[in-house]
Amino acid sequence: MIKAGIIGATGYTGVELLRLLAPRDDVQLTAVTSRQCQGQPLASRFPNLHGHVDLEFAAPDTATLKDCDVVFFATPSGVAMQGAGPLLEAGVKVIDLSADFRLRDIHLWEKWYKTHHASPNLAAEAVYGLPETGREKIASAQLVAAPGCYPTAIQLALIPLLEAGLADTGRLIADAKSGLSGAGRRALEDYLLCEVGESVKAYGLGGHRHHPEICQQLQVISGGPVTLTFVPHLVPMSRGIFATVYAPLSNDKETDASALQACFETRYATEPFVRVLPPGELPASRDVKGSNRCEVAVTYAAASRTVVVLAAEDNLLKGASGQAVQCMNIMFGLAEETGLQHIALLP
Amino acid sequence: MIKAGIIGATGYTGVELLRLLAPRDDVQLTAVTSRQCQGQPLASRFPNLHGHVDLEFAAPDTATLKDCDVVFFATPSGVAMQGAGPLLEAGVKVIDLSADFRLRDIHLWEKWYKTHHASPNLAAEAVYGLPETGREKIASAQLVAAPGCYPTAIQLALIPLLEAGLADTGRLIADAKSGLSGAGRRALEDYLLCEVGESVKAYGLGGHRHHPEICQQLQVISGGPVTLTFVPHLVPMSRGIFATVYAPLSNDKETDASALQACFETRYATEPFVRVLPPGELPASRDVKGSNRCEVAVTYAAASRTVVVLAAEDNLLKGASGQAVQCMNIMFGLAEETGLQHIALLP
Amino acid sequence: MIKAGIIGATGYTGVELLRLLAPRDDVQLTAVTSRQCQGQPLASRFPNLHGHVDLEFAAPDTATLKDCDVVFFATPSGVAMQGAGPLLEAGVKVIDLSADFRLRDIHLWEKWYKTHHASPNLAAEAVYGLPETGREKIASAQLVAAPGCYPTAIQLALIPLLEAGLADTGRLIADAKSGLSGAGRRALEDYLLCEVGESVKAYGLGGHRHHPEICQQLQVISGGPVTLTFVPHLVPMSRGIFATVYAPLSNDKETDASALQACFETRYATEPFVRVLPPGELPASRDVKGSNRCEVAVTYAAASRTVVVLAAEDNLLKGASGQAVQCMNIMFGLAEETGLQHIALLP
Amino acid sequence: MIKAGIIGATGYTGVELLRLLAPRDDVQLTAVTSRQCQGQPLASRFPNLHGHVDLEFAAPDTATLKDCDVVFFATPSGVAMQGAGPLLEAGVKVIDLSADFRLRDIHLWEKWYKTHHASPNLAAEAVYGLPETGREKIASAQLVAAPGCYPTAIQLALIPLLEAGLADTGRLIADAKSGLSGAGRRALEDYLLCEVGESVKAYGLGGHRHHPEICQQLQVISGGPVTLTFVPHLVPMSRGIFATVYAPLSNDKETDASALQACFETRYATEPFVRVLPPGELPASRDVKGSNRCEVAVTYAAASRTVVVLAAEDNLLKGASGQAVQCMNIMFGLAEETGLQHIALLP
Repeated sequence: MIKAGIIGATGYTGVELLRLLAPRDDVQLTAVTSRQCQGQPLASRFPNLHGHVDLEFAAPDTATLKDCDVVFFATPSGVAMQGAGPLLEAGVKVIDLSADFRLRDIHLWEKWYKTHHASPNLAAEAVYGLPETGREKIASAQLVAAPGCYPTAIQLALIPLLEAGLADTGRLIADAKSGLSGAGRRALEDYLLCEVGESVKAYGLGGHRHHPEICQQLQVISGGPVTLTFVPHLVPMSRGIFATVYAPLSNDKETDASALQACFETRYATEPFVRVLPPGELPASRDVKGSNRCEVAVTYAAASRTVVVLAAEDNLLKGASGQAVQCMNIMFGLAEETGLQHIALLP
Repeated sequence: MIKAGIIGATGYTGVELLRLLAPRDDVQLTAVTSRQCQGQPLASRFPNLHGHVDLEFAAPDTATLKDCDVVFFATPSGVAMQGAGPLLEAGVKVIDLSADFRLRDIHLWEKWYKTHHASPNLAAEAVYGLPETGREKIASAQLVAAPGCYPTAIQLALIPLLEAGLADTGRLIADAKSGLSGAGRRALEDYLLCEVGESVKAYGLGGHRHHPEICQQLQVISGGPVTLTFVPHLVPMSRGIFATVYAPLSNDKETDASALQACFETRYATEPFVRVLPPGELPASRDVKGSNRCEVAVTYAAASRTVVVLAAEDNLLKGASGQAVQCMNIMFGLAEETGLQHIALLP
Repeated sequence: MIKAGIIGATGYTGVELLRLLAPRDDVQLTAVTSRQCQGQPLASRFPNLHGHVDLEFAAPDTATLKDCDVVFFATPSGVAMQGAGPLLEAGVKVIDLSADFRLRDIHLWEKWYKTHHASPNLAAEAVYGLPETGREKIASAQLVAAPGCYPTAIQLALIPLLEAGLADTGRLIADAKSGLSGAGRRALEDYLLCEVGESVKAYGLGGHRHHPEICQQLQVISGGPVTLTFVPHLVPMSRGIFATVYAPLSNDKETDASALQACFETRYATEPFVRVLPPGELPASRDVKGSNRCEVAVTYAAASRTVVVLAAEDNLLKGASGQAVQCMNIMFGLAEETGLQHIALLP
Repeated sequence: MIKAGIIGATGYTGVELLRLLAPRDDVQLTAVTSRQCQGQPLASRFPNLHGHVDLEFAAPDTATLKDCDVVFFATPSGVAMQGAGPLLEAGVKVIDLSADFRLRDIHLWEKWYKTHHASPNLAAEAVYGLPETGREKIASAQLVAAPGCYPTAIQLALIPLLEAGLADTGRLIADAKSGLSGAGRRALEDYLLCEVGESVKAYGLGGHRHHPEICQQLQVISGGPVTLTFVPHLVPMSRGIFATVYAPLSNDKETDASALQACFETRYATEPFVRVLPPGELPASRDVKGSNRCEVAVTYAAASRTVVVLAAEDNLLKGASGQAVQCMNIMFGLAEETGLQHIALLP
């Protein structure tokens, strides 16, 4: 029995972690904390949990948390870097869903998050929690920085191309479309139904916080410098990320649709949560709603020598909490699919 | 191992049955039939099933179906009344999600469905599949007529009042709001996103097919005549039913909010899929999205001596396929909650 | 040329007033004020106004406002009762879109709005701004309290019945469905797309602020006591109100569908902004999106002797700003339809 | 008084033409035809038109249409090429909203539309109806082929760059997001709310019918060959197009954000329906809902030398019917803004 704690479980990634973990026989929710909701039943904030999770939000008390085998941080940036240290020292495994430990370059982190990083040493030892590129390291990690929705979709779209050296890494483009839950459960005017309903807009062109993380990882994957133009958009729905990635073929390479298809199918043949669609099929975000699966299609625009990859995932599952649980499974030597076999809700 | 068949599994209740049954260890999907999609993989029509259900749509072949322990009809009205007989004779249990066997009065059925009923004798012996009122009969039934979304929500809102004789049954009103999946996966202009998006409308005021069924059952429950004004509405969402039921207090009764609360809590104390909300809380359809639970709140408008009951359910679960599986569990002597413990997807 | 001012034009009723008034040749926007946005161009808060309204938000300065011929209060409750007095004294006509002057009974107002009323004398002299019941009084009024979305839809649904003495006024029910813009442009978690998308819920059953206003007016119309059960709901869309009103026929009356149809058609024959649908047609909120029209259908459930009236309006037009402009037209002796002839946007 | 006819006005572009033309004093709707709805009042199909348009759908009778000064074809492809000839011969001006006369290369047209072109001579003489590039030719044209939603948004995003020779025209990318009304009022399962709600998907990667048209026009504008990768997406809303265009800077050019801003502002300085947003502001499709304006923002990703242009328009206005009316105004020597000054509906 794995004793699990969740810190800051009042947002959408928190309730999704609870939805995934509560039904499991091999996991016991030991402590679910929230400063702001302390003492309230979890089900009062998340009515869907009623009858499934009987806990109250606890104070973020270190003693109780130290008793856990694993603690998830479902907190805004800046919390995990303060709280992870003592837990790690106590032998607790930590999975951080925030961005605190995702960047190797602390100066870059401090520039983007506009604050001093409290634990640069932990950032240095944290393992990036994308199983498709680092399953082995995750297995032996004590601290995992689980990537979020945009980085996951974009990396999964590009891994086969970059590993095969097919893409001109100086001219990559990721055009991403996200539902609103990616923005969190924050009471901002910008996210009101009346503001975002019946509308599409781009944002963050001046620079999005996830951009340096995506570039860092694409460089790790490709083994060289990467230049990525990243334009995120908001579309009027709750869940789902759809990334359309444009990768020019390297000048010295040739390819065609079937070679690309084979490249992707081979790369992901054994991945439990990445599905390469057959030629002619295209993903839709609703096909993975409520599921931990990322669906990927690869096409080739020969006239412009551009590979176009489409990736759809549920931002709260493969793009957040599902990925974190996948990491937990790996860290505890369980079958990776354990508790993550949900069939998407359709319609 | 229960060998299960599904006839006509190309619509939303079909895919929901598959989502519920496919993961079960105690159920084997033996035959999933569709004349129109014969030979196609199920996953080509329902991408969410890929990797979970490996079957192809089969022809509706009686021999294969007779080999099943249970067959679900997820068909339009008029199909089950033709096909159920031979299966029942072969000892197969049948659960019909359509309206073919729900009305006791065959003349009434023929009037509403504008066709001759092919099996009036089966309609006479069919058991109405609402576990909350007829669990014992369902347990021993060979043919179950599972009620749909409006009848279920409205009955669950009224059962405690009617059984307690509190309501003036001559003046009941049910104002129901439904998502579009209740209309099925039919390519009609009326259900296009551009037609129903950003809009609310009423329909069926001249008479809705489910009206006689609801009245029939309310009369069974109350043991006397019932007059119900029923106004269904379409609201711009995919899933969910919300019923607002107005029941005038009988002239000879007195009550108050806490007595009503107690009445409902007592009646549903042991029901696994009906949750009476605590005083002051009101249901929302999204709190039960993807779950088999119906959430009910009861309030009292003293000035007009009117009990107002609110009931929310997922029309594809407790309002259709979840209910059918709940009936199956009862018919096979399984724990009623088996395979139906999904936590609602939030958001 | 009418010099018009708008106080507090930062919300949805404010921008709608601006959309209606800016294109008019006979109206000059003289002062548009907002404490919070002072100095900003209106178009920075409302991009749709760019190129149409060149003003900046001004401080709510009394001198400038006193120069206007008419001032609209598009403010939360509690502002107009403070600011209207000096303007009225200066001879400015005032149209209040808030609830400050709608209730005749100041004690009732103070109970519901939980504050001391600053100008009970003004509340006493204010004219209720529903042209369909009080066109003449509005014409000579200096202070008009324009009713909001729920009161307008419900009154328009009931006026013909109450004036004809057909309804049992002790048992009226109004089940209303509203889009989110009715809740205003307030940054509350409850109104996030992720909270209200794909969901229906009821609210305010313990008592809604508009309830006493609706009852007061229904009593004025019927000339006797009225008991109304009012249940508002939120549905996942931006604009639109749909009211389903259930009125039991008086014990001493008889009617049928065609008599009711005639009653409604006669009553509204000359109303420019109320359309009685022909028999068999039902309204949909999207049919009046962006238009000042309220569409009404009347049906009769003979079995329960219940008249069911359906009314659809755009909550920001006939339910708020359109109505206020209609009142302005009347107060200034203009043709009532002036500047309000927009065809609804479909889809 | 301009006598105007509309052929095939049963879809969304038809009703939008009617919404634009009906209120005009200088236009008289003479004939609105539809084979399928012949004899029905327009308002029975489009309830928003009730009280504004009193016509019935007429048979597509040539005599009546020849009496018009201008006829709009709001028909599927293949109709205008049959019907335009006789009207043109009779001296009627024709504005075609379909694709029949947009491609110069008839063989290309026949390949994409999989049919024989009935009037290649007319296709040769038709003027492409994008006022921003061909106002003068439109003014003297008798036959105008008005471009649709994708071509308009993408051209408006690229015109300043191409005219200035700034873009590497061999590597252009247009990632477009469209609401569902772009797909027309067709009763297809794919466009049901339950299929497209809460989802984003790409389509047409194998080749979209508008692709050759866009390329043809970009080549006209740039004066040289153009290679464009075009990926259209569907997002869950009714109206609106959002195009994100990625244009690599030519190898031999240098630029920066302010030079690009100046380039766009200068190019569109006198355009009544193109608004270049100030630096730092980004468009949203809802800001132009119901308006004929296209809003454009230009940004520069220096690291990858990529110009990113964002363009938002209402697909039924600037992307279809608004554009057609703009062309009509030009053809009849009217002020170009006549009848097109609608402020967008917000929210």
